[in-house]
Parts: sequence; C-alpha cells; structure tokens
Amino acid sequence: MTAINLGMVGGGQGAFIGGVHRIAARIDGEFRLVAGALSSTPEKARASGAELGLDPARIYDDYRQMATREARLKDGIRAVAIVTPNHMHAGPAIEFLKRGIHVICDKPLTATMAEARKLAKVAAEAKALFILTHNYTGYPMVRQARAMVAAGELGKIRLVQVEYVQDWLTEAAEASGSKQAEWRTDPARSGAGGALGDIGTHAYNLAAFVAGQEPEALAADLTSFVPGRPLDDNAHVMMRYAGGAKGTLWASQVAPGNENGLRLRIYGEKGGLEWSQEDPNRLWFTPFGQDKRLITRGGAGAGFDAQRVTRIPGGHPEGYLEAFATIYTEAARAIRAFDAGQPKPEGVIYPTIEDGLRGMRFVEACVQSAKRNASWVLL
Amino acid sequence: MTAINLGMVGGGQGAFIGGVHRIAARIDGEFRLVAGALSSTPEKARASGAELGLDPARIYDDYRQMATREARLKDGIRAVAIVTPNHMHAGPAIEFLKRGIHVICDKPLTATMAEARKLAKVAAEAKALFILTHNYTGYPMVRQARAMVAAGELGKIRLVQVEYVQDWLTEAAEASGSKQAEWRTDPARSGAGGALGDIGTHAYNLAAFVAGQEPEALAADLTSFVPGRPLDDNAHVMMRYAGGAKGTLWASQVAPGNENGLRLRIYGEKGGLEWSQEDPNRLWFTPFGQDKRLITRGGAGAGFDAQRVTRIPGGHPEGYLEAFATIYTEAARAIRAFDAGQPKPEGVIYPTIEDGLRGMRFVEACVQSAKRNASWVLL
Amino acid sequence: MTAINLGMVGGGQGAFIGGVHRIAARIDGEFRLVAGALSSTPEKARASGAELGLDPARIYDDYRQMATREARLKDGIRAVAIVTPNHMHAGPAIEFLKRGIHVICDKPLTATMAEARKLAKVAAEAKALFILTHNYTGYPMVRQARAMVAAGELGKIRLVQVEYVQDWLTEAAEASGSKQAEWRTDPARSGAGGALGDIGTHAYNLAAFVAGQEPEALAADLTSFVPGRPLDDNAHVMMRYAGGAKGTLWASQVAPGNENGLRLRIYGEKGGLEWSQEDPNRLWFTPFGQDKRLITRGGAGAGFDAQRVTRIPGGHPEGYLEAFATIYTEAARAIRAFDAGQPKPEGVIYPTIEDGLRGMRFVEACVQSAKRNASWVLL
Amino acid sequence: MTAINLGMVGGGQGAFIGGVHRIAARIDGEFRLVAGALSSTPEKARASGAELGLDPARIYDDYRQMATREARLKDGIRAVAIVTPNHMHAGPAIEFLKRGIHVICDKPLTATMAEARKLAKVAAEAKALFILTHNYTGYPMVRQARAMVAAGELGKIRLVQVEYVQDWLTEAAEASGSKQAEWRTDPARSGAGGALGDIGTHAYNLAAFVAGQEPEALAADLTSFVPGRPLDDNAHVMMRYAGGAKGTLWASQVAPGNENGLRLRIYGEKGGLEWSQEDPNRLWFTPFGQDKRLITRGGAGAGFDAQRVTRIPGGHPEGYLEAFATIYTEAARAIRAFDAGQPKPEGVIYPTIEDGLRGMRFVEACVQSAKRNASWVLL
Repeated sequence: MTAINLGMVGGGQGAFIGGVHRIAARIDGEFRLVAGALSSTPEKARASGAELGLDPARIYDDYRQMATREARLKDGIRAVAIVTPNHMHAGPAIEFLKRGIHVICDKPLTATMAEARKLAKVAAEAKALFILTHNYTGYPMVRQARAMVAAGELGKIRLVQVEYVQDWLTEAAEASGSKQAEWRTDPARSGAGGALGDIGTHAYNLAAFVAGQEPEALAADLTSFVPGRPLDDNAHVMMRYAGGAKGTLWASQVAPGNENGLRLRIYGEKGGLEWSQEDPNRLWFTPFGQDKRLITRGGAGAGFDAQRVTRIPGGHPEGYLEAFATIYTEAARAIRAFDAGQPKPEGVIYPTIEDGLRGMRFVEACVQSAKRNASWVLL
Repeated sequence: MTAINLGMVGGGQGAFIGGVHRIAARIDGEFRLVAGALSSTPEKARASGAELGLDPARIYDDYRQMATREARLKDGIRAVAIVTPNHMHAGPAIEFLKRGIHVICDKPLTATMAEARKLAKVAAEAKALFILTHNYTGYPMVRQARAMVAAGELGKIRLVQVEYVQDWLTEAAEASGSKQAEWRTDPARSGAGGALGDIGTHAYNLAAFVAGQEPEALAADLTSFVPGRPLDDNAHVMMRYAGGAKGTLWASQVAPGNENGLRLRIYGEKGGLEWSQEDPNRLWFTPFGQDKRLITRGGAGAGFDAQRVTRIPGGHPEGYLEAFATIYTEAARAIRAFDAGQPKPEGVIYPTIEDGLRGMRFVEACVQSAKRNASWVLL
Repeated sequence: MTAINLGMVGGGQGAFIGGVHRIAARIDGEFRLVAGALSSTPEKARASGAELGLDPARIYDDYRQMATREARLKDGIRAVAIVTPNHMHAGPAIEFLKRGIHVICDKPLTATMAEARKLAKVAAEAKALFILTHNYTGYPMVRQARAMVAAGELGKIRLVQVEYVQDWLTEAAEASGSKQAEWRTDPARSGAGGALGDIGTHAYNLAAFVAGQEPEALAADLTSFVPGRPLDDNAHVMMRYAGGAKGTLWASQVAPGNENGLRLRIYGEKGGLEWSQEDPNRLWFTPFGQDKRLITRGGAGAGFDAQRVTRIPGGHPEGYLEAFATIYTEAARAIRAFDAGQPKPEGVIYPTIEDGLRGMRFVEACVQSAKRNASWVLL
Repeated sequence: MTAINLGMVGGGQGAFIGGVHRIAARIDGEFRLVAGALSSTPEKARASGAELGLDPARIYDDYRQMATREARLKDGIRAVAIVTPNHMHAGPAIEFLKRGIHVICDKPLTATMAEARKLAKVAAEAKALFILTHNYTGYPMVRQARAMVAAGELGKIRLVQVEYVQDWLTEAAEASGSKQAEWRTDPARSGAGGALGDIGTHAYNLAAFVAGQEPEALAADLTSFVPGRPLDDNAHVMMRYAGGAKGTLWASQVAPGNENGLRLRIYGEKGGLEWSQEDPNRLWFTPFGQDKRLITRGGAGAGFDAQRVTRIPGGHPEGYLEAFATIYTEAARAIRAFDAGQPKPEGVIYPTIEDGLRGMRFVEACVQSAKRNASWVLL
C-alpha cells in the first residue's frame, strides 16, 4: 500500500503540536510528509522544511501557494495537516478543501463561531474529507467504553463526569517567554475560551464520544486566576442531557500536581466505567452489584472496537502518540475509501467537522453562561 | 486514667452507625458504655442492651428517662452518643445538654433548620460540650492537609474539588427491605437532603476543614434518579468563596463502582494536595514546579497535627474506625479539660455545633438553589 | 456477653507492640485488661499500670507472681497477652498455661528452637489455649484469599511469591537509641533471625495460611548490610513445595521507600491472587483468560470467611488494628467455647503453636542454609 | 536529514516482533524500510513485502541474497533489522556485518553460546555496528534511574530486585496453534532458556543497565510447569554482586493476571528507586528518611538523560513503541556518526553485543545452576 502524500501547515521550529502530528502520521506508515508551509516567516519555513528533509521545491512560504501548487502536481499532496493556532485553522482549511485536498485539522475547530460556520459550509460542499484531531478518541479503551455504552452495558446513562486538569499555567508562563502559553492565553489567537478551548473542548468531545449524547443545557463558571490573563484558566461546568442525565465538566490549567489529567467517569442504571488518560490502557468497569473489572487494551475483555485500533499485546503500554496515530490511520482508511468512491469502511471512526462545531458551541455557551452569572444556557 | 462513662441513644439491633460509635469509643479506652436507650421499642432496647452487657438497670426505654436518671446517679454517664436518624438528634441532645451531660452526636446535625437552631441555642447555654461526628476530620492525613493549608504551603487557595460518591442506592434499596436505605430516603426522618444530607454534608465539612474557609455562594443541581425517590440521590454543586476561590462538590449514591469515594483535591497559587478516604494513609503534595510527594501517616513528612492522632507506624494502615475513634478521643480530651474547668488542650480539634449549623445551611441552600433552577444562593 | 479478663506481660512504657495488643483486645469489646506484669523494672511496671488505670493490687513486678496470684483469684484473668521480646515468650507462656490460663502470644514463638519445643510440649498438655498473633491472617481479604485457594478457584498452586519489605533499619538505628531496633538486632533477645524472625516469619506464615501448604525445602541467602549488625537485615529465600509448587520469600529492613510492604502473590493452574498489606481491603483475582477482578472487603465478591470478620461496609477501610483485633476476637470465641467444654465454633481461625513451631523451623532452616552457602535444606 | 535505508530479515505475515520493529523504525523518521527477506517461504516473503509497499526488486527469498545484492547497490541498505527466532540471528547478522551493513538485532543474542561467540568475533572485526534491541532500556524513566544510580543518589547499591512476569503460557498455547508459543518453547529455535531467554534476559539486562553492575554469581531454580514443555516457563534466580549487593530475578510466563509485568526495584545505602514497565512514565524515588517522590517523564525531576529521549510533555504517556523507537533512534545517531568517521555522540546509549553475550551467559549459568540443584554458579 502506498503512503498518502501529506502536507503540513504550521508546525515549524519551536512549535509543539506539529511534531506530534508528524509522528502520528508516520507510526502506521499510512502517510508520507512531502510538502509544508511550516511557518509564516519564510526563513523559518525553509529551515524547518530542510530539517524535515523536505524537497526544497515543496517548502512553501504561504499555505495558499502550497494549496494552489500541490493541487496541480501529479504527485501532489492528497491530504494536509493544519497545526497552526486556532485563528489560523479556517483560512488554510478552506483553501485545501476547495481544491479537493483532505484536511486533518487540529482542535478546536477555529477561534470564532463565525469562522467555524464558514468552514463548515465549505466542508459540506467539498470533495474532500475534514478530520478533526480530537486525538483522545483514538485510545483503544475509549473506543471500548463507547462500544460498551452503545451496547447498553451501562443501561440508561445517568451521570457523565469529565475533567481535564493541568498545572502548567499556574503562574504567568505567558509573561516569561513560553510561546505555547502566549497564544493559548491570547483571545486573538485562541478565541473566546482559554482552558475551555484548549482542553475543555477535548473533555467535552471525549464525554460526548463515549456517552453517545451531548448535553442540551449547561451552566458555566469561568475564572482567570492568574492576574492579567484575559482568558479563563479554569472552568466549572454543570450539564443537563435530554434523556435526564446530568454531568459536570472541569477544565483547569492551574491545579498544581496535574499534568494531563483527562479523566472520564460515566454511570448508568446498570453499571459504571472509569478511564484516565494518564493510564490509558486500562478501563474500569463495574456492573452494579458485582466486582469491579479491569479491562485492558489487548486483554480478554477488549472487544472489536478496541482490538481494531490496537497494535501490540496487553501490558506493553500504547500511549498518546499511538492514539493520535489512530486518528491519522482512521483518516487514511476513510480517505482511501473516499478517493475510491467507496463508503467509509466498517468500524472506521474519526472526529468530524460536526464535532468541531459542537465544541465551538460548547465554548460559546460556556462564555454566555459565565457572563450571565453561570445561569443555564441551551446548547 | 479512668474511662468516661458513656450512654447511647439509638444504635440497637439492626442499626449501623451505633456499632461504629461503640467501637470508636472503645479503641483508645477513653470511654466505657454503661447505659443506653438503644431503641424506642422497649423489647428491642432491652435485648440490645443485654447483648452489649449493660446493667439491666441502665437499659432505658426512653432517652428522657435515661437523661433524668443518669443525671442523678453518682456514677451516671458524663457523655452520651446520639446515633439515631437525623430527626431524632435534637430531642435527645437537648435533654442531655440541659443536664450538663456532654453530647457526641452523629451528623447531619438535625433533620430541619428549625431544630438545628433550637439545639444550637440550648448548646450555647449548656454546661456541657457538643461534639458532632464528622469523622473524616479524624484521619491523620486530613489533619496534615489542614495544617499545611493553614501554614501557607499551598499559597492562597484557588480551587476546592470535593466529592463523595457511592453506589448503594443505584436501585431502589428502600423498596426491598434495607432499613438504612429507608430512613435515608425519607424526608420525615432525613430532612430536606438525601445524598446531600447523608454524605454531601461530610464532603462539605471535609472541604471546609482543610481549606479553612467556606463558600459564600453556591449553585446546586439536585436529582433523584431512582423513580419515586423523594430525596436527591445525586447533587452537583458549584461553589464560590469570598477570597476568590472556586470549587465543586459532587455527592452521589447512584454511581456504580464507588463504595465510599470521598475525595478532596485542593489547589493554591503555590501547590496542590490530594487525598482519598479509601486510601487514607496517603496524602499527595505537589509544590508547583517540583515532583509530587507522597506524605504518609507515620512517615517522614507527617507533622505534629498528624502525629498526635497517629497510633501505629506508617505502612500499617489505620482506617475508618481509627479516624472515628480520634473524634471520640479528642472529645474525651476536651471533656476532661472542660470538667476540670480548664481550656481545651492545645491541638485538640473536633467538629462543633457551628459545623453542624453550617452543614444544615449548606443543605438548605442547595435545596433553595435547586428549586430556582440551580441559580446562585448566598450562604 | 461479659468481657474476658485479660492480663498482660510486657508492654510497659516505651514498648510498641503492647499498645497494639491493648487496642486490638478492646476493639470488639471481648476483653478487659485487669492485670499486668508490664515491665521487669518494678517502678516502670507500676507507672505503666497506673497509666492504664489498672487496680494497683493487680500490677505485678513479676509474671510468676501474676500467674500464681491471678490463678487463685475468683475473678482472675482467664487469658494473658505476652508482648515481651522473643526470648521472654516461653517463660511466661509456660507459667500461665500450666495454670490453665489461656495465652495470646506475640510472634515469633520464641528466640530458640529449644524453648519452642519446650513450650509446645507444655501447650500440648495444658488445659488452656495458645494463640500466636500472626496478625496479618486477621485481614478479611487474607481470609478470602485462603478460602478461594481452598475452594480450588486457582487450581493447583504453582507459585507462591511473598515479601515483607521495610526500610527502618537502613541505617544503624540500634546504635542511635531506638529500643525497637536494639532488641530486634540482638541475637540474645531475638534469636537467630533478624529480619527473618521479625518479619520473615510473618511473610512465611501468611503464605502458608493462604496457600494451605508449606514448603518442603528452602535455600536462603542472608545478609547483614549494616556494618556490625549481628543478625540478617535482608533475606532472600527460594522455596519448593511437595506438590511441585515453587516460591520465593523476600524479607528486608533496608529497602528505602518501603514501610510495611507485606505482599503476597499466588498463582495456580487456573488463576492468580494478589494482595498487599498496605492496601488491605482489596484483593485482585484473575481467573486465567478473563479480566482481572477487584474483590473488596464488604463488596460483592467477598465470601463467608471474609464477611464474618468484617465490621464495616466496603470503602470504609479497615486496617492493621482491626486485623489484629480479629485475632483477639477469634481467640475470645475459641476461649469461650473451650471454657464451656465445646468444640471450636465453625469458621473460627487463629494461629496456633504449630504455626509458631513452623515459623521457628523456617528461621532455623534459613540460617542452616545460609551457613552452607544457601544450599537446599529440608523443612 | 535523510532517513537511513533499512532492510529486514524475518517479520513476515503472522510474525509479531517484526511489526514492532517497523513501527519503532518509523516513529522518529530516522529509517526507511526499503528491502526485506521477510520469510524463508518465498511466497510469503513476496506477499509480505508487497503488503509493506516494498519495491519487488528488493524483496528477497533469502537473507544471503539480500546481503550480497544490497551491499552492491548504490542506495543499498545501510542497516538491517533481524527479527527472526533466536536460532536465526547469528547467520544473517554475520552476513551483513561482514559487508559493512549495520545490524539491529532482536534479543536474546542467539540460541546458543557457540553462535554468540562466533557472532561476537565477527562483530568485533566488522566495519559496522551491532545494536541489540533490549528495548526497555529506551524508556526515559529507565534512563533516569540509571543516571541517578550512576550519580550516587542511591549510595552504594545493596539490593536489586527485578522481575518479568507474564501469564500467556499458563496453558499449553504451543499445542493449540500459537506460533509465538511454538518457537518460544522449542529448544531448537529458542535455545536453552524458555521464559529465561525470552523475558529473563530482558529483566537481567534492565537490572544491569540501571544498577551499572552485573552479578558475579547466581543460583537458579528453573521449572516447566506445563506438562510436556521442554523449556522453563518459570525461573527463580538469586544473585550476588562483587560489591556486596544481592538480588533476585523472577521470570515467569505462567502467572495469571500478569501481562508484561517487568518491574525493577533497586535500593542503596541512601535511597531506593522503583519502576514498572506497565506504568513506564513514572519513577518512584525515596531518599532514605524523606518522603517518596514521583519523578515523571517530562516532569520537574527528569534530568538530561531522560529528557533527551523524551518526545512529548509529561502526562501524555509515551509507551512501549516509543521506548523501542528510542533504541532505533540511538542506533541512527550512532550509525550516522560511525559512517562519518566520528565517535559516538555524547549521551547516546544502546545495547551492544557485549550486553548480548552477558545475557547468553546469564541463561547458560542459570541452566547450569538448575542442573546442579540450584547451586551457585559464577558468571
């Protein structure tokens, strides 16, 4: 099977998530990075491209140029990874989608709702796929949890408790030279949500992915604990679901002792599931009235949905990069089928632009609620 | 040192918490159970008393009779443990306090705010102490956490995340013969709070105990998931503190896979602490920017406040009963000093009627908030 | 039910395990401490007795005096707890057994094999019971494990991996004033085993208790890491069982970061069990080819043998003192039956003098093996 | 930087470790698989090569043919991965080394000591590097542990406790069609060690890597629990080190409930370290007399040696494949330097043929010891 030619927008020297996307694209050998508009600074773009061993002719200063030229090449890129800050997602995504080049885009979808809607419209009409890298949905045990909920093993869902807790913004890292902190606390580049947009959207997406439902209303209390920080660094959200379920979402970047504490607990009339991103190969399942069981990736209790995205035996931990790679590999499966005029293969799952829109709406609703003293807002 | 003569109201055959109080009173040898009005059913009272080896002359059918008579005895009880359902706290407590007999009372304080205020008034004027058994404050690592917060090791507090999660009411246990479930889901006996009163007050008290502060406002979403249950079995609460801190409290009795998941996480500008009741001998401390540290009961990092309530070396787990016993032993220390006309000895801590009132106000405020669509209510 | 009158030999001021025995004896209310020969120093004996509220007439300077006098009293002690260093077990035990007073004795049985045999002979002929406080067998999840092995849930046993790891003797604590360290590293008081006798015998007993079998041969490598220490502070032992099972036992007091790391893992043809004393309310069970299951004290998977020694619901941790108390309470049940001329009640389990002899033989065999370059020695 | 052209011997359809090597080679983009002798069955070799997208001209039926031809190609492979069963390591390794093609070889080194010595001789004279994939040494926290021991943070080492425990051979999987089980239990293909060779050598290597020393003597008790199995499925080994340290190694494939339980605990005069492969991003460090500390990959306590092989921030777990990839990437760094006539770059670490020889000697000594009733054998 030939690898899919991939381009990248953003991800030049000093960036973080671009490198992650590149590893993820490589792990299963489904993609080959052949072109890039890696930085808006031409020199940096060229240096970054050279470092990655790109053909100089396919190192671009500008994503528009890349889109135009690659679309015309015989062996041009079939997909592009967009790994810029949030306010730079919609622009390139639209350029590539319009030219029938598949887009694999980092989250959240965009910086503003207006951009999101514009992009969604283009995506709906495009002859190409749009894949959003809500990478945590790539973990085998998250797939397992989703399948178990869908199969009714928890009964009707009552409670959805999700949190994503970090500590790296406990102090004003944005004031002491951290580029990652700078743009993530800048409304112009991040949009209306701080912790909310950066990690809250991941938590929201994960909960929806597993629960198979989204809240119909929420009440959010947003806080900027670090003086002078214009965006929230902590979000407390209560949620209500149409079917009667309730939940809370907590996103924080100021809780010392937490690295990437994304954790989901979901309970129904018949049982409960618990999963934590920092220990991702394990899923705890308690059928009510029975002993708790440890389902492991690769173990006896892992079903089809987990096994099909599992690479190595249980007890040999797969991690964040493998889960991220699964998003890429699912994208590759979908792209190959799409390009061959076939339907999406059975079992293939990836986050879509609809997920992205829902994440944007989640941020918007939280901000609205917070402005109204954390009163309830419909989603 | 002679053991303090103790009486008990409630706790007859079939009861749960009475037996816990009796063990707790025995562990450090500070109390001797010598009298009881163990049940309002005379036969059961007598059978229960006989089983406990009480002198038949000091087995009472009625707590008033016990109060009257014991107050007159030369070797009458100096303290009484009240372990009845919530609606039966105020009555006996008042009888004993009026007679100068110290009261050790189970939580929550009472079933109604009116009773609570009446009791508080009597307690304020009584020549006896009132101790409320918020037993989780007896854990050495909880004492340690409180001392660390008070000493400023976390800096100014920003976040208080507390939860108490169980699963035993996932189904309608109250309909299938569980006496414990029956009264806990009955407003006439429990008061306005279900999970809220039973375990939410514990969580609230624990958070306040460690944080050294209480919220000034809250918003609560209460749910009764089990059909026909008149009281909440799940409570989601957002909290705001005067100093700018925020928090959430989650109490649930319908989350399968949770036994007694009382867990506190508290974060400040300089560090974070994490503690869980099911693993009570360990306290996690992260000074921001440093490695996480495991403080153990009896270990190198345990300070004075933890050590003075520690019985055995680290690695030999102390549990729930020892923490409960610590409340009794602190009560004994306070009682001995009080009776000798001395001030409370240094270091002695126990939950008071003020804690009880604050717990009642917490329940009341949650119920108010819930009725107003979980809007904010001042405390 | 009237409490059993209990005496104590040893356990005066400054001692450690005496206090543990006293709490253990109190927890379930089955015993009442009424007499003591708490120290061989008369003044200390008296001060210690007074502190415990003993009747001055029943505070003895000498255990022989206590045995003689209490045997004659109408309400004399029916049982005595012996909590002296190892070399002071046999003497008092024999005195009391001869007079028909039940003995509850700390482990290891004695300091020397000769004493052990002498004591065993007396015990065999005595009109009283001998109970050895291998207290870890009192943990409900240890009882559960034993019952599961006995019921064949693991199939034929193949592997027994047990360890008891501490760090408190990493440095020469015996040289800096620790009384606990002094006698435990002194062959005259401890016998031939250091870590081996102090904690290795516990590990050995625990493994045998759960496995339902003892090794027939062992090879032991003993080490004294701390310069000048005459007894082992680390023991590595390989074991072979008659039925073909193999095992290892590791006892160490010089492994920094370990408090009381007593841990048992046992595997058979059909499944495995794992238990750790520092997290004693949980037992991991894996039926081969299925998910791992968490059996909790008080939880759904806990059977009769665990439940009958369980005091409080799951999720409320019981600890070391409760397990120790269970030994006392089982002793009380056995004593009451014995004194009434009845057989031991169903389900009652306590460690006997045979367990003590086996522990002594274990130490002896390890020392023999170590002297012969860790070659195999038959048990 | 151009990727290094890589060939592969073994790893065709149905194989396990070949796929792992391919992912590992891809993760950091340092290698490009361009040629293969993937199976000794020509048809399978071709099908496997096609599946991997190899140029048909570079799919070989025979590794000798591949060595000969690739050595002559202008863009021929510069390195080859050997991923065949143990008895097929030496043959191909020698062919490629002789032609100056670097060899990356799976462990254990060979099936027999004779082969190992022959290979070592060739390697010593070759103009190419030999890298052995003891992949666990690629984990950042293992690097961290090694660096801490080397820096003296534990003081003089006293105890080395290592184990690698699995359960997949609890039953006779080799008799029911598992190819993985078949060759691993076949002396002709595996050599003299079963569990010993397959996972015991990993445990041995890991312990030596971190401790910075190897035992000078050992005593091993080997067992084949599954009837009819010609090789050990369980190994208990006691070890003695020249400097006075002691240790045990336990390797088992018949312990139900264990997936890949590789765990190292190492203790010195000043502190202890604990690490487990199933939770590889965490390293526990206890300086004696202080609180235990959790050093995390990417966290505050991770030093240079860990950081240089870390890809993503703490809390985003890296796993088995990343650790394996690190071996490849270290190999790439060494290969690039070697080919440029430069010394190995600072910090670069990879397992060598000497490590392989030591592993072989370990197996040999264990087998010798086991034959002599587990008596001590010098290494």
